Amino acid sequence: MDIQKAVAELKNRKRVLEEKELELAPADAGFERTKMEDLIKRRFFFDNSFAIYGGITGQFDFGPMGCSIKNNMINLWRNHFVLNEQMLEVDCTVLTPEPVLKASGHVERFADLMVKDQGNGDCFRLDHLIKAHLEKLIVDKATTEAKKEEYKDIIVKLDGFSKEEMNSVLRKYDVKSPITGNEVSDAIEFNLMFSTSIGPSGNVKGFLRPETAQGIFVNFKRLLEFNQRKIPFAVAQVGNAFRNEISPRSGLIRVREFTMAEIEHFVDPSDKSHAKFESVSNLELNLYTACNQMDGQPSVTMKLKDAVEQKLIANETLGYFIGRIYLFMVKVGVNPQRLRFRQHMGNEMAHYATDCWDAETLTSYGWVECVGCADRSCFDLSQHAKATNVRLVAEKELAEPKVVPVVEFVPNKGLIGKNFKGEAQKILEKLAQIDAEQIAEYEKLLESNGQFELAVAEKEVTITKEMVSVKKYDKKVFVEEFVPGVIEPSFGIGRIMHSIFEHTFTIRDGDDQRTYFALPAIVCPIKCSILPLSNNATLKALVSRIADLLLENSIAFKIDDSSGSIGKRYARTDEISIPFAVTVDFDSEKDDSVTMRERDSMEQVRLKVTLPFYLIYKFVTSTSFKLFSFRTFLY
Amino acid sequence: MDIQKAVAELKNRKRVLEEKELELAPADAGFERTKMEDLIKRRFFFDNSFAIYGGITGQFDFGPMGCSIKNNMINLWRNHFVLNEQMLEVDCTVLTPEPVLKASGHVERFADLMVKDQGNGDCFRLDHLIKAHLEKLIVDKATTEAKKEEYKDIIVKLDGFSKEEMNSVLRKYDVKSPITGNEVSDAIEFNLMFSTSIGPSGNVKGFLRPETAQGIFVNFKRLLEFNQRKIPFAVAQVGNAFRNEISPRSGLIRVREFTMAEIEHFVDPSDKSHAKFESVSNLELNLYTACNQMDGQPSVTMKLKDAVEQKLIANETLGYFIGRIYLFMVKVGVNPQRLRFRQHMGNEMAHYATDCWDAETLTSYGWVECVGCADRSCFDLSQHAKATNVRLVAEKELAEPKVVPVVEFVPNKGLIGKNFKGEAQKILEKLAQIDAEQIAEYEKLLESNGQFELAVAEKEVTITKEMVSVKKYDKKVFVEEFVPGVIEPSFGIGRIMHSIFEHTFTIRDGDDQRTYFALPAIVCPIKCSILPLSNNATLKALVSRIADLLLENSIAFKIDDSSGSIGKRYARTDEISIPFAVTVDFDSEKDDSVTMRERDSMEQVRLKVTLPFYLIYKFVTSTSFKLFSFRTFLY
Repeated sequence: MDIQKAVAELKNRKRVLEEKELELAPADAGFERTKMEDLIKRRFFFDNSFAIYGGITGQFDFGPMGCSIKNNMINLWRNHFVLNEQMLEVDCTVLTPEPVLKASGHVERFADLMVKDQGNGDCFRLDHLIKAHLEKLIVDKATTEAKKEEYKDIIVKLDGFSKEEMNSVLRKYDVKSPITGNEVSDAIEFNLMFSTSIGPSGNVKGFLRPETAQGIFVNFKRLLEFNQRKIPFAVAQVGNAFRNEISPRSGLIRVREFTMAEIEHFVDPSDKSHAKFESVSNLELNLYTACNQMDGQPSVTMKLKDAVEQKLIANETLGYFIGRIYLFMVKVGVNPQRLRFRQHMGNEMAHYATDCWDAETLTSYGWVECVGCADRSCFDLSQHAKATNVRLVAEKELAEPKVVPVVEFVPNKGLIGKNFKGEAQKILEKLAQIDAEQIAEYEKLLESNGQFELAVAEKEVTITKEMVSVKKYDKKVFVEEFVPGVIEPSFGIGRIMHSIFEHTFTIRDGDDQRTYFALPAIVCPIKCSILPLSNNATLKALVSRIADLLLENSIAFKIDDSSGSIGKRYARTDEISIPFAVTVDFDSEKDDSVTMRERDSMEQVRLKVTLPFYLIYKFVTSTSFKLFSFRTFLY
Repeated sequence: MDIQKAVAELKNRKRVLEEKELELAPADAGFERTKMEDLIKRRFFFDNSFAIYGGITGQFDFGPMGCSIKNNMINLWRNHFVLNEQMLEVDCTVLTPEPVLKASGHVERFADLMVKDQGNGDCFRLDHLIKAHLEKLIVDKATTEAKKEEYKDIIVKLDGFSKEEMNSVLRKYDVKSPITGNEVSDAIEFNLMFSTSIGPSGNVKGFLRPETAQGIFVNFKRLLEFNQRKIPFAVAQVGNAFRNEISPRSGLIRVREFTMAEIEHFVDPSDKSHAKFESVSNLELNLYTACNQMDGQPSVTMKLKDAVEQKLIANETLGYFIGRIYLFMVKVGVNPQRLRFRQHMGNEMAHYATDCWDAETLTSYGWVECVGCADRSCFDLSQHAKATNVRLVAEKELAEPKVVPVVEFVPNKGLIGKNFKGEAQKILEKLAQIDAEQIAEYEKLLESNGQFELAVAEKEVTITKEMVSVKKYDKKVFVEEFVPGVIEPSFGIGRIMHSIFEHTFTIRDGDDQRTYFALPAIVCPIKCSILPLSNNATLKALVSRIADLLLENSIAFKIDDSSGSIGKRYARTDEISIPFAVTVDFDSEKDDSVTMRERDSMEQVRLKVTLPFYLIYKFVTSTSFKLFSFRTFLY
């Protein structure tokens, strides 16, 4: 109990520290979330789904700009990770039968506690409810100092409470529904997976996948085969996952349907070095170690190399991915000043993980986890192997051959064939797969009962001691089997988008009506606007020429030939984050030239008509766009 | 009844004709489906999901090659349609609340008939079951000629039978479960949507969307706004849809979870011309009109221009999209000799459609619908408008202003405010939205009862005649509102993939073990293999140089430095459809050159080391790849 108290106290300190850090973080002058949300809604970057039907919380539709930003981010992700690392990308189904998610632990453990209003059935997430109730009491003037301390203490400990402890808190402090004042039910474990049934019979229970990872694990054998049985290798997947959140909130941050991009890097657990670690080892990152969190110390900036050497980061492979994640985040527009890697503390880590670092961005909602990077050890493959009796292992050559004891069943094929006819083949296959440990157990049964039951293809068959004997011998082996470990970087695309929106939201100096997102050109939906000053035929022909050049180079553009003033049109195209504008004016007719304007600097250059497409192409395909000087291209 | 018989007879003729056509179709020498399926499985293009758990029918996981082909196809689709036509692409949620799919008609009508084995609960699609039963009787020697005719007659009519007629056929011919011989239940309407519940209360029923289209319709207002209220415009969406098929079959062709790419082109129903129709009007397509099907005539090859002029295709916009679909299909690898456009006959068209053409490919399963291209008229927008009371309309300027009668409620704001307090504002808004027809009905109620009930935000409120008066007057208007019509090209990505696999599957002359897909370079997963003849350091350096050049240009490649012979390695890279191979040999050290080989022709050229990446880039980004002569690049 003392230890628990101490841990809670440390957690409390950590929170105080975090709040302090938030205060001290470089204030983002002028950031107003409502203004940003207004722009997002007005130009339909995204918005609530089914709004004309009253909407559904926790679901969002991406409009043309949001959809395109998302696609560009995903393409960039594929380039940065899949192509660059020669990963194998797969695309697995969303509908997942129950046994798969039982093995992965989701059916049993993927739940939050909630309570129901006894009157109208409203549901509340229990930890949120208790916290809100106690926080209200704490600010109540009638509450004594001693009581306040008691409440604060509970809030700090809340995360670690069991269902029973939660229930007793609920009753002790007489927590009611904050909306109706009604009594609430006892805590209910609410599984966050959406369930459905697959096929017409109604007998096959299935879930919408809560993560894309399991699809990769169940295909491990095929993928290892595809990779010519070489290890390490990485598999990637981009796709939707679904979580039936009790109370979705904070826009894109906590939603019920979301796009993930996940990587499972399979590795020999005894050697987690990474061949390309050096390429990122000199990056200086903001690291918030578990120790620093527990000790109430702030995060530190250090080189990846040092963090791995000092064992703050468990191994090179984990370190390598942390570095690659950092580079990706900055490429898509996250402000590196507002990006940190936070290590999970022992008590918050999933039971199977051995180390885990979250890439967190600083937003107006506080620090938000955008990418998890966990060493999942051998947990998932072992679980699926156990559930299916399929060996999910890789092999490695031994430095020297080794002598190992072998235990196996020698079947009496004639007798088994006679007894089981058509099923004999399956039984023989099954007998050959049983491992030494299991054989030992069966052997005991054979000795005591003279027979044992064997599960074969959803049936049980009886194997008698006449049908099998157990053979034990030594064998010289040149390879060794092992269950690969898994390093998993897992990206929440929506959360990264939210971060980018906040980090690039800009209000033009002196005009708070002119707002836009200063997105990197590479993620911008439309790369270039074409703005003719008039609709006359010559200008139209020029506009077509420029449009054709852009189209040929697959550069998305938008012609705005409306009658608005050029300033108004710039503002309108800024709003949807178009980084470059090409204005066709009356001089264009004479000297075959146009004005090209850059969104962020508002600088303008005069160019030959045939040049903008080339420059934009260069800007858009270059990820180091910011390093270019627009002025370089002065005509 | 006579007419029905006649229609059935014509349908029968159509089928006979189709079979004849299939026979006469250019035999694909050497195509063996099992060989193709073996290659697909062996190199994990795709395979059954959750196979280690026994698998789930109708669900497939795409391995590295399948996933990449799919992504490449989708990117090409985006380029060909979205970018080229400046469409608005959106990304809406899969989870859809019930009221949306009630309005669209899916809750009521999206069902197939099935029966259950009374013994073990096995489910059968009723039409498949009856057909199989009667077909068995037809080939039975004991069956009389008269009976055979009777059975054939029923098979032909089956599609048009009601549930009751199906049931009586079932009983009359005593159809049993073909597996157990048990009795089967009466016909059950089985809705093909997967249902789930959204949120923790369990009260919000939802479905997984059966098509992506509805997400676009419910966002129509936002999208029209984004398009600055101009019409026509098109909206696109790529995403997964879900259908709980009773009996999935034929690999990727009938599955439970699949990727669709849909376009909704909104148009003024009184003007369905298309500005770019001319660009496709001279394409010669294989068209199978409804008339020809009914008359037992074969399909005809004709110019799109003529088909639209002769009103075989209902309008230019429909014709334009048929042309664009054709170009897309050929670009991704469909054999144009095995592609036709078949018009729906009156009795198979959805009730809301006014014309519909399917792009069908000829495969070993017969003609398969891959793309539907329907004129959905104003059905969906009208339905959602009705269900939500939100006006889903566009406006157009009138040639001359027009005087129209206006009927509206004039509310007594004071009285309404006094009676309804906080809800008054919503009631006033609602009153302002009611259309003339509805007002007339309410007016009758006011006269007869002195009041009427109004539904406001899930409640009913009573409006008395003191609260409102009805005002009627004439108004001069300059614009006219209309509900846009919708032309919908809808692509089944999996079915197109299946077609491409069949159409490009190739067996090398003289060696039926060497099989590969001759995919167009633009959809190939990996564009280039690099094959060093040895692992010595100089060659390694050359390999790195080539790899870096490819990487810089985002061209996917694969280094195969295994010890296999060069022929074996070519065969292995052919299998995963790599179109180009670069071999680094001992001459390479001396003269800085490599051999580049093309997969399909097996021709080889000698090139400077720095050249392959450039050529491949050209090949891969050019969609007219086949027109290039590989020989042009002889060193």
